[in-house]
Order: sequence, then C-alpha cells, then structure tokens
Amino acid sequence: MSEQITLPTPTGPAISADVRRVHEGGKLAVAATTRVRDRDDLALVYTPGVAEVCLAIHDRPSLARSYTIKRNSVAVVSDGSAVLGLGDIGPEAAMPVMEGKALLLKELAGVDGYPICLDARDPDRIVEIVTAIAPGFGGINLEDISAPRCFEIEGKLRRRLAIPVFHDDQHGTAIVVLAALRNAARLVGKTVGPTLRVVVQGIGAAGIAVSELLLAAGVTDLVGVDRNGIVTARRSTARDPIFRRLGKRTNPRELTGPVELALDGADVFIGVSAGGTITERDLQHMASDPIVFAMANPVPEIEPALARRHAAVVATGRSDHPNQINNVLCFPGLFRGLLDAGATRVSTTMKLAAADAIAGLVGTDELAPEHIIPSPFDERVVPAVAAAVAEIARREGAVVT
Amino acid sequence: MSEQITLPTPTGPAISADVRRVHEGGKLAVAATTRVRDRDDLALVYTPGVAEVCLAIHDRPSLARSYTIKRNSVAVVSDGSAVLGLGDIGPEAAMPVMEGKALLLKELAGVDGYPICLDARDPDRIVEIVTAIAPGFGGINLEDISAPRCFEIEGKLRRRLAIPVFHDDQHGTAIVVLAALRNAARLVGKTVGPTLRVVVQGIGAAGIAVSELLLAAGVTDLVGVDRNGIVTARRSTARDPIFRRLGKRTNPRELTGPVELALDGADVFIGVSAGGTITERDLQHMASDPIVFAMANPVPEIEPALARRHAAVVATGRSDHPNQINNVLCFPGLFRGLLDAGATRVSTTMKLAAADAIAGLVGTDELAPEHIIPSPFDERVVPAVAAAVAEIARREGAVVT
Repeated sequence: MSEQITLPTPTGPAISADVRRVHEGGKLAVAATTRVRDRDDLALVYTPGVAEVCLAIHDRPSLARSYTIKRNSVAVVSDGSAVLGLGDIGPEAAMPVMEGKALLLKELAGVDGYPICLDARDPDRIVEIVTAIAPGFGGINLEDISAPRCFEIEGKLRRRLAIPVFHDDQHGTAIVVLAALRNAARLVGKTVGPTLRVVVQGIGAAGIAVSELLLAAGVTDLVGVDRNGIVTARRSTARDPIFRRLGKRTNPRELTGPVELALDGADVFIGVSAGGTITERDLQHMASDPIVFAMANPVPEIEPALARRHAAVVATGRSDHPNQINNVLCFPGLFRGLLDAGATRVSTTMKLAAADAIAGLVGTDELAPEHIIPSPFDERVVPAVAAAVAEIARREGAVVT
Repeated sequence: MSEQITLPTPTGPAISADVRRVHEGGKLAVAATTRVRDRDDLALVYTPGVAEVCLAIHDRPSLARSYTIKRNSVAVVSDGSAVLGLGDIGPEAAMPVMEGKALLLKELAGVDGYPICLDARDPDRIVEIVTAIAPGFGGINLEDISAPRCFEIEGKLRRRLAIPVFHDDQHGTAIVVLAALRNAARLVGKTVGPTLRVVVQGIGAAGIAVSELLLAAGVTDLVGVDRNGIVTARRSTARDPIFRRLGKRTNPRELTGPVELALDGADVFIGVSAGGTITERDLQHMASDPIVFAMANPVPEIEPALARRHAAVVATGRSDHPNQINNVLCFPGLFRGLLDAGATRVSTTMKLAAADAIAGLVGTDELAPEHIIPSPFDERVVPAVAAAVAEIARREGAVVT
C-alpha cells in the first residue's frame, strides 16, 4: 500500500472550473482599428501625421469625437466599496465585475467600456480623479460605490462634466423597475400614477433612485421603508440630504411604523433592501391584485413561490425566476443612445423614455404574470432604448455641437 | 458659364486625407475575449459567477494577474503638456498620440495599452490620480509630460506603486540612444566607456535620461550643454534637483562655455535639444571619426547631409534619414518583458539590457554607417528586448510573487 500524503488544505475561496475558464486572463483586450505594418503606416498613425489631428482638436475640441476613441468610450468606474452583495472588497477585487460590465457594453451594444478601479475613498478625491481622467471618455458609468457616498460623487460629477455620468446601481435599477412596473400595472388594469400606492423597502442607492423615478413618472402615494420603519419627513435618523429630501417628497398620508403598516392597502411592493423581509400575511393586506418585486439578492424579501400565492405579479432580481429585474436591460442601450447622440448629460426624461422603451417591447398579446419584461438577450432591447434616449437628448439640446 | 460660388475658408488646421482615414473614429476599440450569448454565459461572466473570482482576488490580491486584464494592461498617461514638438496642447488634443502609442504597444507587442489623458497639471495631483487608477493596470507609461514636472511625477510614482512606471520620453529615448551609440562606437573601433568623450546638447527630459543612462553604461567624460552653455556643478541657473545632480556627476574636466568648446576633441555629439544648433566647423574640431546624433525634431541640430561630410556616423530622429533613433524600438518590447515577468519596477539594469538587446540585433556583417540600429519593424526586436528585460526582472527578484 502506498503512503497517504496529506495535502495542505487549499486556502481561500474556490473558483469553479466553468467560472475560471471565462475569467482567466481577464475578459477584455484592447484592439487596434487601424494597422501599422511599415514606416509609411507609422508616419500616418504616429509622427509626423498624428500632429495634424492633434492640432485640429486643439483648435476645435469637439473634433475629439471625430478623431479619438472618446466617440465610443465609457469609463466603468468603481472604488470597490459596495461590490454586488459582497460589500467593500477594494479596487482590485472589483475588477472582474467592472470588466464584466464593460464586456456587456461591448457585446450587447458595441460600446467600448473600460474598467477603472480606484484606490480612493474620499468622495471629493474620487470626484477629482474622475474629472481628471474624463477627457478621453464619452461617458462615465459609476458602479458599486457605497451609499450615501455615491449620491455626492454622482451629483458633483454631473455638475462638473460635460459628458453623461450615470450611476447604474441607482438609475439602471430604477429604469428597469419602472419598465417592469408599467407592464405589471397594465396587466392588472392599473396605471403608474397618482392612484397607485407604492411601498419601497430599502432606502439605499437603488431605493432612492427607484423612488425618485417613480415620483417623476407621476406616482404620488409612495412610502419608503428602511430598517427603522417608514421614512417620514421628520425622522431623526435622516442620514444625508438626499434621504431627508425623500422624506419630504413621499409618504403623503404621513404614516409612521413598520413595513406591515405601509403595505396595508398598497398596490405595489418594491424590495431593494439589503435583506429586509415581508410575510404572506403582509401580502394579504395589500390591495387587490398586488404587485410584488422582491429584489433583495441573493435572498428576496419574500420567497417568490410564497409571494405568487397572493400577488398577481411577482418579479425578483434572480435569474432562476421569471421576471428578473436586470440592469443589463438598460445600461448597454442607454450608453449606446447617449454616445450616438453625443449627449452631454443624462436627464430624467431620458430615463423615463428608456423605461418606456423597455416596457414597450412586451406586446399586449405576450404580456403575462410571468412575462412583464423582455429578455436582456432580446435583440430589440438595445436599439429601442438607444433610439429613445438619443431622441430625447437631441430634443433637449443636450448634445455636443 | 456657371456661377462661381465662393466657399468659406475652412477654419483651423487641415488634416490630409490619408491621415484622416487612419484616425477617424479613433484608433482603438475594446474587444471581448469571452462571449455573452445567453443567460448561462451571463451567470458565469457576471452575477452570480463573477463573485467567486472577486472573493478569490480579495483573499489573495496577486490573483488579479490571473483573473483580470491587469496581467496585460498598460495605462498610457499624459497631461498633454509637452506633446511631440507641439508643446502644451491639453489632454483632449493629446489623445491621438496616446492612442497611437497604445496602438503600437498592441500591434508590435500584444500589450493592451489604454490612453488616459489627464485634465490636471499639478505634479502632486497627477501622482494622486495615477496612483488611484493603478489597481487595474500592470504598468504605467508616462508620455509627453513637460520637464521638470515629469521627473517629480515619475519619481514619486515609482516610489508609491508596485508596478513598473516608465516615462518614455526620458528612458525610451535613452535606451535607443545607448543602443545606437554602442553600435556606432563599435563601427569606428571605440567603446562606450571611460575613454569616450560625449557631449549631450539639450538638458530636458530626454537629455537628462540619456546622460544618466550613459553614466550607468560606464561613460565618465560626459558634458551637458543647454541654451546657457555647458552645465557645471556650480551653474546658478540650476533649475531643479535633477539638473543640479547632473551638474555634479558630469563635466569632469570642469569646462565652462558654449557648445563649441565642449565639442573640441569630443567623440560623440548627442543632440536632444528643442532646436539648438551646431556647425560644420564644430564637427571639424571633434576627435577622429566623430559620431553625431542630431535628434532635434523637426529641424536637427545640424543638417544631416552637412554632418555626413565630417562624421563617421550620423543618426537623427527623422524617418526620412538613415539611423532613425525611434522610441518604437524600445517601449513595446520593454513592456512585453515587464508584463511577462510580472515586474514590479523598471531598473537601470533592465534599461541597459534593453539597449544591449537592440544593439545586438545588428550583426557585424550588417553594421555600417547608415545601419547602426534595426528597423522597428524587424520582428526580432520585441522578443529580444522582452526576453532581456524579463530575465533581469526575474534575476533581481523585482516580480510579483
């Protein structure tokens, strides 16, 4: 009998073989779009020829969109402080997600996303850095930056830069939620507007953006709930200006108390919490044909099978259930449209138009409790979102001239 | 006869059709190295699969080189303050050059260079920004940053970062000059060492780096000359620490005066000035078989045809003359080698090895006054430089473990 050698236990988390295969060596490369085979090519792409292009751009900066990659480039920026559900894992460990995001921009929408993971935490420092690297990019996609820092960072960058700045965890989620909600409401004969009672659980980056976009879409009876209960105008726990502003603009019936109370008679529950819970009993007290989006990841606010017993429509954030609320439905087409138009900003009107474009792809004949949103691999999604966003950008005059 | 319509004069500098064609839309794209065709792919490249990779890197940061693009990525960073011979044209107008550099990295050496043009000028701010964006890159190529800011920026970044930082205008030029000088000296039966008298005209980024590398290669009688004449240890015009240090380490015969005086009896003239001039008469007073590298661009320090009347070997920075001293001979292979080895820095020994590798590609039978360096399109250049640099990196233990 041969000796049994005790192998050391492998340290660290395991990577399964399938995952390893697609991530090995990174998921992106830089590709040349022109050739350099000889000295003649070199004299055109580099010195002395390149000087003509540099001088032309120096003379007329908007030519950067004609003669540089700015035309089609988006920086996918993160500080690694709130990556997926993993939390604060830092910039190097965040790279695989940002590469994934860039990969999806490319594969789905032909946008050249490039991951920039920042070894920086102070919001003002992040604003300085992103402002400084912006000249070569046509857009900035902020990603996985923890709240409330993300609000300050996005707000300041939007004011400083003349290119679109979009925090996907906020607005991408909000757009897809609104798209799904429009169709869910349509299915049960309700309308996204003043008559719809909506409860949003989880008042982080996504929750605040969802609430603001729903208000912009005409919802007036919106009640926010965080771990301390219903958000009110007076809540002493108000952590930052954006949270306080939300308190003032929502909860018109001035409710106070736990989520159960908010859900009593509500038409819609939207869970974007870090692990809140609601019960079957809570759903029983909602209005007729309740709509439940239980999007906490990996564990939804209520088990989808339980929710389906009471709700007319159930959606989650998970790919193994119907109606996945997936940001991939929005950001590739959104940036495609922004770049196509040479947009200088992202407006609320563009976000509303993107949501309508996504919702509009589910025809009346297809609309069903388990099919309220298209698949991210539906080839109509990107062109529809891009066209809608670009049209608004041009109409608003928010484009490079 | 038809009417003659007077067209408005086009404003701004013209771009010739050939140049326009290769620069239109930019010269780079981001490419996907893995596919995303359906939900199964999405679950591997993005959530939930990607979380396994993130956690593994969080647990062991060196895995970033296995599972992210850091492995093969170089940031080509400029602030646009000293672009080619054009001067301070700003970050957007610098983009075509940085894209060109990235293109050459890709086409010649398979390195994924990405242009980052900074809207920032203060050296400390640039250091902060480059440090912050470094996590996703395996190397930093600084480019076209004006002297003396470039010395401070490179020095601080080298101390702060555990990836190679290389200012090509300094060290790329120095390496190719040393390579060419080794072969020129060989051709005339001289040696790069204590017996060789060298004059360097132009004490900017390139001049200082050339001087330092020649000193490292064993030259002792080196005389620097700037627009105020010979650089001495005592020159009151000394502008910064690096300039003062050069003054102390050069000019052992303690000459003072104009370039003519320095050239009297010199073996080698290296011009990397912003437009200095020397005359035929100066060359007549050099030692036997003088070597003249007149690299000012676009107008060399002396007309090459005139130089050839007196010098045994003439090189320039121009592609329309023999012996072009072209940085393209160095930086693609250098970064290939640094990335292959997982190098954590660039050392002087690596620079000397890179120069020797370039020089070694011109065989004794090929060596001629008009052929002292290989073509940048000689396919042996990149592998030779890469292998030499990687070997030193490993030998010095300057690699990721």
